[in-house]
Order: sequence, then structure tokens, then C-alpha cells
Amino acid sequence: MSHLLRTRPATTPAMLAVFDDAATLRHALAFEAQLAAAQAAEGVIDAADAQAVAAGCAVFAINPAVLADEAALAGTLAIPLVKRLRAGLSGTASASLHKGATSQDVADTVLACQIREAYALLKADLDRVAPALDQLAERHAATPSIGRTLLQDALPIGFGLRIAQWRTGIVKAGERLDREVTDAARIQLGGAAGTRAGLSGKGSAVAARMAEVLGLAAGPPWHANRGSIAAVATALAILIGALGKMARDVSLLAQNTVGEAREPAVPGRGGSSAMAHKRNPTGCQVALSAVLRAPGLVAGILSGLPAEEERGLGGWQAEGPALAELFLLAAGSLDAMASVAEGLEIDEAAIARNLATAGIGDDIGESAAIVAELAARNRV
Amino acid sequence: MSHLLRTRPATTPAMLAVFDDAATLRHALAFEAQLAAAQAAEGVIDAADAQAVAAGCAVFAINPAVLADEAALAGTLAIPLVKRLRAGLSGTASASLHKGATSQDVADTVLACQIREAYALLKADLDRVAPALDQLAERHAATPSIGRTLLQDALPIGFGLRIAQWRTGIVKAGERLDREVTDAARIQLGGAAGTRAGLSGKGSAVAARMAEVLGLAAGPPWHANRGSIAAVATALAILIGALGKMARDVSLLAQNTVGEAREPAVPGRGGSSAMAHKRNPTGCQVALSAVLRAPGLVAGILSGLPAEEERGLGGWQAEGPALAELFLLAAGSLDAMASVAEGLEIDEAAIARNLATAGIGDDIGESAAIVAELAARNRV
Amino acid sequence: MSHLLRTRPATTPAMLAVFDDAATLRHALAFEAQLAAAQAAEGVIDAADAQAVAAGCAVFAINPAVLADEAALAGTLAIPLVKRLRAGLSGTASASLHKGATSQDVADTVLACQIREAYALLKADLDRVAPALDQLAERHAATPSIGRTLLQDALPIGFGLRIAQWRTGIVKAGERLDREVTDAARIQLGGAAGTRAGLSGKGSAVAARMAEVLGLAAGPPWHANRGSIAAVATALAILIGALGKMARDVSLLAQNTVGEAREPAVPGRGGSSAMAHKRNPTGCQVALSAVLRAPGLVAGILSGLPAEEERGLGGWQAEGPALAELFLLAAGSLDAMASVAEGLEIDEAAIARNLATAGIGDDIGESAAIVAELAARNRV
Amino acid sequence: MSHLLRTRPATTPAMLAVFDDAATLRHALAFEAQLAAAQAAEGVIDAADAQAVAAGCAVFAINPAVLADEAALAGTLAIPLVKRLRAGLSGTASASLHKGATSQDVADTVLACQIREAYALLKADLDRVAPALDQLAERHAATPSIGRTLLQDALPIGFGLRIAQWRTGIVKAGERLDREVTDAARIQLGGAAGTRAGLSGKGSAVAARMAEVLGLAAGPPWHANRGSIAAVATALAILIGALGKMARDVSLLAQNTVGEAREPAVPGRGGSSAMAHKRNPTGCQVALSAVLRAPGLVAGILSGLPAEEERGLGGWQAEGPALAELFLLAAGSLDAMASVAEGLEIDEAAIARNLATAGIGDDIGESAAIVAELAARNRV
Repeated sequence: MSHLLRTRPATTPAMLAVFDDAATLRHALAFEAQLAAAQAAEGVIDAADAQAVAAGCAVFAINPAVLADEAALAGTLAIPLVKRLRAGLSGTASASLHKGATSQDVADTVLACQIREAYALLKADLDRVAPALDQLAERHAATPSIGRTLLQDALPIGFGLRIAQWRTGIVKAGERLDREVTDAARIQLGGAAGTRAGLSGKGSAVAARMAEVLGLAAGPPWHANRGSIAAVATALAILIGALGKMARDVSLLAQNTVGEAREPAVPGRGGSSAMAHKRNPTGCQVALSAVLRAPGLVAGILSGLPAEEERGLGGWQAEGPALAELFLLAAGSLDAMASVAEGLEIDEAAIARNLATAGIGDDIGESAAIVAELAARNRV
Repeated sequence: MSHLLRTRPATTPAMLAVFDDAATLRHALAFEAQLAAAQAAEGVIDAADAQAVAAGCAVFAINPAVLADEAALAGTLAIPLVKRLRAGLSGTASASLHKGATSQDVADTVLACQIREAYALLKADLDRVAPALDQLAERHAATPSIGRTLLQDALPIGFGLRIAQWRTGIVKAGERLDREVTDAARIQLGGAAGTRAGLSGKGSAVAARMAEVLGLAAGPPWHANRGSIAAVATALAILIGALGKMARDVSLLAQNTVGEAREPAVPGRGGSSAMAHKRNPTGCQVALSAVLRAPGLVAGILSGLPAEEERGLGGWQAEGPALAELFLLAAGSLDAMASVAEGLEIDEAAIARNLATAGIGDDIGESAAIVAELAARNRV
Repeated sequence: MSHLLRTRPATTPAMLAVFDDAATLRHALAFEAQLAAAQAAEGVIDAADAQAVAAGCAVFAINPAVLADEAALAGTLAIPLVKRLRAGLSGTASASLHKGATSQDVADTVLACQIREAYALLKADLDRVAPALDQLAERHAATPSIGRTLLQDALPIGFGLRIAQWRTGIVKAGERLDREVTDAARIQLGGAAGTRAGLSGKGSAVAARMAEVLGLAAGPPWHANRGSIAAVATALAILIGALGKMARDVSLLAQNTVGEAREPAVPGRGGSSAMAHKRNPTGCQVALSAVLRAPGLVAGILSGLPAEEERGLGGWQAEGPALAELFLLAAGSLDAMASVAEGLEIDEAAIARNLATAGIGDDIGESAAIVAELAARNRV
Repeated sequence: MSHLLRTRPATTPAMLAVFDDAATLRHALAFEAQLAAAQAAEGVIDAADAQAVAAGCAVFAINPAVLADEAALAGTLAIPLVKRLRAGLSGTASASLHKGATSQDVADTVLACQIREAYALLKADLDRVAPALDQLAERHAATPSIGRTLLQDALPIGFGLRIAQWRTGIVKAGERLDREVTDAARIQLGGAAGTRAGLSGKGSAVAARMAEVLGLAAGPPWHANRGSIAAVATALAILIGALGKMARDVSLLAQNTVGEAREPAVPGRGGSSAMAHKRNPTGCQVALSAVLRAPGLVAGILSGLPAEEERGLGGWQAEGPALAELFLLAAGSLDAMASVAEGLEIDEAAIARNLATAGIGDDIGESAAIVAELAARNRV
């Protein structure tokens, strides 16, 4: 799809790389190599065959577009990949390749590796947002400002209290995501019907060895149990929602008639092809756009949970792109809002002016104490 | 809405009662009474006034339909409720009622109490499903049967392995729900703009006392931080999806040409107004219907996360009914599938016949070991 | 579910009545009576039996809660309803009742009748909105005001141009809904498997007679073809979105710092339990809440389209409540925004002040011409 | 995103090309060239300047990746595109480029062109499906087979009746899509705030000329009125659902224990990396996967309808990729099911055997007449 008009601005190059063809192929080759290595270690296949498989994977080179064409026809990447790898292997090594595995084992393990790597990227940006917001919240904890409910002036609040609430929402969402990623980044090795047949009874041990090397959790096959994937998806959507909450508020505060805060200026960003004077809340736009797309992606993944028997028809296939897209959106939103958090321009004069205009005093209650209490919870 | 054609079969009377008018009013009155009691204990108001408030709440009686009309006009329950309660109170007691609180404090705390009670009902049914499925999985762990992928015969599996996977999906979903409910069932006390103004600086202590009595977690206001509510919603949808997975499989196994398993017969259920001979998978229908409705409800809640400032316009109002509906759907689905789990009729002859027809042997790999491994994890 | 806190404010009593138990039962009885009458007219059953059925339907009286309990157990309304009606009929009349029909015929025809009646209610309110907005748009077509993009001041526009765009969105959505309702409000008569068996080859003629009397379109069975229902649902969601667009803008214009327009004051509405001075945009809140709920309901209906064979397991059952809820939301939103349109308070001084502050002149281009062009299209 | 594992199989190369970078750039350049040409024709700019702009657009060449980077930074394609085009133009031609237009005018008009081209592709495949299904339906109209409801044997139906219902659902969905595309494929020319300022009062005429050349409908600006886009999206989802209905049924009929029909064999498709004997319903998988993804995409577009004022913050940006994805999914699904329709293998012996086993006779009612009636309606 065209990156020119739309898709591109919404994510980061690093997150795109996690889910691109090269990464997918790299993980798939690692799966095959480590499957053979683990089987050799458990005595299921010969060590020499495992080394031959590893060597074949190491030198495997192909134009991804060609492989994609073949995968599209076959309905799965593993079929052409295994076929091509086999072509370079002798008899017993050839038979040892992909032994006991099925296409879904490859695809799910690749996805698990991508989940782990994608989360690491998000974590780095989460670690930017929290301290930046902490600092802003603390500095403005006792700054009287107008609180607003239902888009109407309500009662005074400490300006930093709103910021502390953004931070709490984002940090809690990050903690949930961490928990769900830990659960979902799990080796998949079940074979054609999820029984670990053809592994000489060593399936559990083989899977454990692979998990160790690939940096994944070990455990029984989960081919038809997609709840953990769905939980990562929902955790991402909640994170995107928490970032969207911050973006919504910043964009409202940045309205010309309000003027209490605005995004930092970035050279080349936020302009208009028709109006040179504008300073658009481009970061907020990225985050708010993400929040419109995420819920539907989650709904699709949830709809696919009742997969038929040992591998569903349609549901499993729909899940991967949706999860990848959620990571792309989360990365774009988090990157954008981290920059906003780090450079948010706050106009104390406008804050004071708007509060004075409201004419309802300046009793901000326990705002500062709540800011401190929020900071004390959910430490990063 | 009419219960005749559609809504009614999808839930349980007990869950309907958790979210009905009487329960809502009971929790709202408890909020007001405990708010006054806690303020008296902290010296914010006089003990006598708190007693007067408590007495007023205790004797408050009204036709809910009348109150609902007034609430519909005012846009919130708290406005007419507080007005009516005040009418029965003298001067200082009247001023002490609802002191420092806002409509959303009432509504969110009521919702937190309903979440806690609703989960308790689900937990009771979760405790029926898991052992029933454990028993079936163990009994049939080594029964060779045909495994199916993409709705086609694949390779043999132990019949109990599929059941063990159902159980794992459901139990893990229950654990996630437990975690999220514990987080979300939290007192809300922030006042009009979430600053705990008007509580003489005792807001945190007042909230903690109320939480204790109402059986909720304590903590700072979360009025504009709806992530925990969204997380309960998504956990419910994942549970509904896990139950739907079991329902999908049971309904496929119960097809006339398959015949490997079917729902227990229930007098008066599963019939047809046109075909007396039919035995419809009515329990599965309830669960599969729920799985079609839940994802969209979740999407709606996620879409509302970027609430404007101190109280959003529309998002917060949309969240409550959607969350209640998710609990209703989960209750209906869980109740139905618990009955299916407890009474599932398994036809070993049909299982053997279908496997023989497939003609691919009976190597079920490590099926029995995986069943044991799944049972060992995620103990209830 | 409780009407106290949540469901009630979002719709109108008239729309609730379209989908309540009494209406459902009334339509179901009309189906049975007209089925018998049409069969008698076509010579399929005796005229005396048809009269006996009609008489039985006319005097049928029951506590809907009791019937709902029975329907919940049976999984369909038709089973207990037909059983109870039969109990009051003699031999041949008893056999003539519900002849050739199945539960879904009753349910779908009832739904078709409700769609027709629900739309009539919406149409009445659509006919309030369009002229009210036309008038406002025309009056303010050439009033220079600040246009805003991405929540930032952009260039001047005629104030009425924004209003004319609201009107166009709403009117076009109404036209689409009209078209889809005409298609979907269709008789369903197919019998158990959709073949019109048991009707002596007169099925098409019987259905046509029933359609005529019930005010529905005639045509072949559509039991497993739910696209027309989905199209009504999506048309409703687009209407809700168009109303939400207007509500979003009004709520932004009504912000204290903007002040260009606000909802009419309604005694008892829009207040706050904590802040007597507030004037909340309660109508906009209803509309914006609806817009958060509608997309998920649509998604659920779309997900159910691939119904299994002659009647799906779960999808069909999920569709009815979602469609009814969409009508309820549309009614609430339309009623609220019709009142806003009729009473919108526009502050020309604020409009002029905000434009002057922006300092970008007052060239409103072809605003007035576009208002006229928009009004000329999509006439009601 | 990686095409290796997932995205690629779900669509057609032709549809990918409609939405790729080259097409996007081509349409954007056509917009700028035709904008200048139309303005020259109306006397708004000089003819020589328009020719210079056209020449500049004709020779414009750039690596799309570079332009995408710039567009990502600027937040819109038009900014870097116009800047680069201007660099090659002299004074007055430079000022005449993009005159009176804004980024959204470019983006929306490009989208309108893509909608028109994308639909033409779908139409070609729709024209394959309908006659193929007509033929099958007619041939098997009177073949007695078992009808199934709720996944249970119900009563006999003509085998072709089910096929005729598929065809009706798909054809009606195609008709709706045609209607909505005609409405949505519309020129967008409103300028920065939708007033057609800066066009010397000739905006309407300029837009009409552009529409004529670009093959779009003419009309007033619709920048903040996204209902027509949403209607195309929902029409696509209903089409995807109708195709999914056919896919669901085919996959059920193709189960090994049923065997009444199956997809045509395609060399290299439907295999398994672990089970050489399998014949997977790969076409159905594509269609059923699409049906899981489409509803959420629609929900996202519907959620964005209440765009803020003259250009929303987030909603508009989320809409384009979702609509493009819906077209991609529809193309993949339609291509797959057209092939299934053209080559569906029907096993009359299995049909007869399953019916006999059910033991409920062979009265198929008016099946053949209904097939004829369905064929007579909704002619392509």
C-alpha cells in the first residue's frame, strides 16, 4: 500500500523493521536451525544433519518478493521455504529439516519473536514518556488552572494533576503490556495437529531448548489457544488509548482560544500546504489517528478467538497482520507523544488568564497531594 | 427492549440482578451513606449529620421508574437522588450530604461495586467449568481421534487434548479477569474536577475508609483514566472468546455426520418449532452469539479512552452499558458452557469410526503428556 | 439492565416501545393470524380454521415475563407461543396454526415490522432537523467566522457553511437509511429450511398476501442472507456519525473560551450535582455517546454475516439486539440534536471577536454559494 | 510490513497497484495539472502558467521512498510534492501551482480516483461470480439434499437453492457498492477551510471541469462530511460478508465427513507443510479471513465520522488506510471465491447419501421455484 499519503507517518522505521520481510525470514530460518539443533541435542536427529540444516539456513538467500509470491500461492511461508532449504540438503539432513513441525509452528514462533522485539522498542519509548511527564506534573502540581468537564469550565485543578493522570494511564498500560508480552512470547511447537508427534517423545524437551535459545518462554503448544495474542492486542489498544487521552487533552489545550500548552515546534512538521502561519498538533494527530484504528483491529482479533478445532479457517490468518498493525500504531503514537512530553510548551500566563476568566476562585483541593500519590504508585 | 425474542436467553437472572435498578440504587445509597460516615470519622462533618444521612438513605424508597425519568432529564442519577435525599434532611445534615462528591463519583463507585459482584458470579461458574473439563480431558487423553485443521482431517490427536486446550484457554482468561477486576474495583472520590476539593484535606483518608467498607480498593481518583475499566472489558471478551472456542468445537463435533460429541439434553431446550426431531446445540449458540457481540462492545470502550480533560463528553457515558452487557454476555456464555462441560456426551464409537475412515493411523504423539502438562499449569 | 444510571437517557420512549415486549408479541400474533388468513385465501387451509386462529390471536393474553421465561428455555419465542395458542384451538385449526412456518419466520418478520416502525419515528425527527439547520445555515451563510482545521485556526468561513455541511451529512444519511429500510422491511416466510415446504406450492402467493397486509415488501426467503439487515445497521451508524459530527462541532463551539454557539437551555437539564453554574452540552453528549457505541454494534452484525447454511449458530441470534440498540441510539441522538438544531443559540459577537483575534482577514470565499448549492441538493 | 507470512495472500496484485505509491503519485500529479488547466479555462490563471504546471507534472520523477520520508515529516504528501514541483517553475507558474487548494483536496481527490479504479477491478470479478453461481444453482435447483440449521440436519432443500442464496447476497452487495461508489467518487476542491477562497469565485466551475477530466462526480466540498466514504466502506464489508457466507458453507460442505462439495484443485495451493494428503479450502480461508478483518476496519471509519470542524484531528488520517485495506480484502476474497464458483466440485453421490442417512424424506418444497425467483431478481 502507498506510504506516500497515509501509512508511513503513523509509525517508526524501527517498528516497521521488526515486521518486515527480512526480519520475518530471519526468524523463520532461526526456527528451522534451532529446531534441528534442539533435536540433535535430544538425540532425535543426527548432529551432522543439524549442522547441515544450520549451515543451509545460514547461507539461505532469496529475493523476498519471489518467496512471497510462492508463499501466497501455497498459503503459507513454510512450504516454499522448506522446499527451497531442502533442495540444498542431502538425504538424511533433508529429512531432518522441519521434522515434527508444521507451518503454524514457524509462523507462531516468528510472531512470538516479533512480539518480544516490538515490545522492547516500545519499552524504550515508555521509559522516555514517564520521567518527562513526572517532571512536568511535579513542576506544575500546584499551579491553579481551570479544570474542565464535558468540555465546560468546571472547578480549579493543579495543572500538573492532569499531566500526572496522563502519566498514570500510560504507565499502567505499559505494565499490563509487559505482563501480557511475557506470557505471549512463547515457543510454538506442536506439529501438524498439536500433538508433538514425530519427535520421538522428546517434544517438550526440544521445545524448551528452542525457547531458551530464541529468548522465548517454554510451554505446551498453544496453536488453537489465541487468548494470549488477543491479550497483547488489547494491552496495546489500551496503551494507545492512554496516549490518545494525553493527545486529546494537549490538542484541546493548544486551541488558539485556550493556549495553555502546545506541542514543541519541529522543523518541517505541522505546517499546512495552504496556510504558512499554522502550527498543527501533528504529534497528537498521530496518536488520535491510532486510537481510531486500534479498537477495530482488536475487535477483529477477538472475533477470531473461536478457532475451529486444531487450526481455524480464517481467524488465525487474520490475527497476525492486525497484531503487527497494532504494534506499528503503538510505536508511532508513543514516539510522537514521547516527543510531545519532552518538549511540551506550557504557557502559565494563559493558564492564569483562563482561570481568572472563569471566576471561580483557585481552590485546587488536594491536587498536589494526588500528584505525589500518583507518582508513588506505578513507578517505572 | 423486548426480552421475548432475543436479549433474555443470553444471560442469567443473577447477572441481570447485579446490574438492575434496585442494585444500582442500593449501591448509590451506600455511597452516600458511607461518604458521610467516613467524613464524620475524619472530622470533616458532624457525626450526627452522618447518622442523619445514613438514616435517610436507609429509609429511602422510590419507584425506580420515576427516578429514572428524573435522571434521564438531569443527565445523571446523582442529581435527582441527592435532591430527594436532601428534602428529608435538616440544614446541616443536608449540607453534609454528597459533600465533596460529584455525580461521576457515585456512578463510578457504583460501577466498581457491580464489577466486584459480577465477577463473583462468574468465578462461581468458572469453578464449575475447569474441573468438569479436567475430568473429561484426563479420561480421553489417550483416546485416538482425528485432529482437524482448516476444517479438514489432519493427523490423529488424543481426544482429551482438544478438551484440555479448551480448559487452558478458559482458565487463563479467568485468571486475567481476576487480576483486572482486582485493579478496577476501586473507590472513586475526586469531586467535581478530581481534586478532592471540599474535603478539608482529608480526601485520601475519607476515600480509604469508604473503600474498606464497600469492599473496594483504595487509591487516587481515576475519573479520566478509564484504562482499568477497558482492561476488565477486554478480559471479559477474551473469556467469552475462550468459551466460544469450546462452543465452536462442540458444535462441529455434534454435526450429524461427525457425531463425536454433543450437548447434554435439557428438557424443553434445543427443540424446533418446525422439526420435533432436532437436537440443537443451544448452549453453543449462546456462547457463539456472545462472541459475535463482545468484540464490538470492547471496541466501543476502547474508542472512548481519550476522554476530554477531567470528564469526557460521550465516552464515559457509553462505557457503563457496554461493560454491563459484556458481563451479561459472559454470564450467559459461562453458564451455558458450564452445563455443556458437565454433561458433554462423548461417543467413542463415532470417534473411532471417523479416525478409521481417515486412514492415517493412530499415532497421537505426546497427547497424553501435553494434557498432563496443561493440567499442571493454570491450576484453579 | 438498570435504566437509572445509563441506558435510559440515550433514547426516546417511543423508540423503546417499538422494541418492547408488547410490540414484539403484537407483531408475532399478527404474523400467525395473517399466515393463516393468507393460507385460507390461497386454499391451503380452511377459512374456518383461519378464523379460529385469528380469534385465538386476538384474545391471546399473557404476562410477557412468563412467556420470556419459556422462550429463554426453548431458545425461541415461537415454540412457547405456538404451544399456548394451540392449547386454545381445536384439531384442524390447531394443525393450521403456524403451518409451513418456522421460528425464524416469526422472528424475522417481527424484526421487519419493527424496522419499518422504527424508521417512521426517525423520519419524523429527520424532518425536524433539516429545515431547522437550513434556516440557520441560510441566516449565517455570509457571517464571517474563523474556520478551524486540526483544532487550529485556519481561514475564515461563512458561519452558516459549517451548519450547511452538518445538514448535508444528516440528510444524505437519512436518504441512505430510507433506501435500505425499504429493502430490508420484507416478509420472511421460508419454513424450516427456507424451501416453503408444506405450503402446497402456494408459498410465494401466501407470502405476498402477508406482506401486503403487514406493510412489508414481498419476496423470496432471506433467512440466511443478512446483508439487508447489515445495510440498515450501517446506514444507522452513518446517520449517528453525521449527528455526532454536528454534536462534536457544537460542543467545541460551546467551550467557554470559544462561546460561538451553545445548546438551548432546557429546565432541569445539563446541570451538575456539584457545580450549579455549569451549562453542559447534554444533547451533544447523547449524540457523542451514541457515536462511540454504534460502530461496535455494526461490527458485530457484519461479523455475523457468514451464517452457517440455512440458519447460523450464533450470528442470527446476535443480530437482533444489536440492530434494536442501533435504532435506540439513533432515536436518542436524533431527538437530542433536533432540539439542538431548533434552539441553537449563536453568539455573533463571539464569532466576530474570535475572527478578529485570529487576524487573518474575513475572506470567506464562496461560502454563501456553497451553502446554496448544498441546500439545493438533497432536498428532504 | 512483511508480505512473507501474511498480508500478501489476502489480495490481488492489481488491487495492490491501485493503492501503491506510483498510483498515488500519478493521481496527485493529475490533480495539480488539472487544477491548473481548469483554472486557466476559467480565466483564474494564465494558460501559459497552466501549461508550465502540466509540463512540470509530466516530467516529475522521484524515488517514492524519498518523497514518503518528506511527507511523513510534513504530515501530508502535498507539502513536499508542491515544494518540489515549485522548484522547477518560474514565478507566475509557481504561484499558479496548487492555487486555492489544500493538502486535503489532493488527498481526497486521489482517494476518489482510487475508489473508482478499485471498484472497476471488483466489478470485473463480480461479473465472474454471478453467472458461475447462476449456472450451478440452476443445474442443482431440484437436487434433493439435506438442509441444515444451527449446524444440525433440518429438512431437505434443493442443493441449488443454497447456491442461489449465495449469489443473491453477493449480487445485492455488488449493487449497493456500485451505488455508493458512484456517490463517493467525487472531486474534492475546497481550499484550506472548504470555502473555495482564492479561486476568483470560479471554484464551482473549476471543480466541475476537473471532475469531468478525472472521471469523478462534481459537487461542493465534502472535506468534513465523510459519510460517503463510510458508506463505501460498509458496502465493501457487506460484500465481504456475502462472500464469507459462501465460503463458510463451502468449507462446511467440504468437511471430510460431509463431502458434498469442495474447492477446485489448484496446483501448488492448499497443501500442508506437514501433511501431503490434505486439500485445504484455501479460497474459503482467504474469504473468511477477510470477514474477520473487515468489520473492525469499518468500525474505525465510523468512529471517525464526527470530525472536528473543517478538518478533523486523527479521524480523517485514519480513514484512508482502512478504506484501502477494505478494497484489498474485498479483492482477495472476490478473486478467491470467483475461482471457487467457477470450479466448485459437487459430489451428487455424497449429497444423496447424506440425505438418505438423515431419513427425513426428500420433499424440497418450492426450492426450484425460489431459485428461479432469485435469479429473476438482481440481474447483473
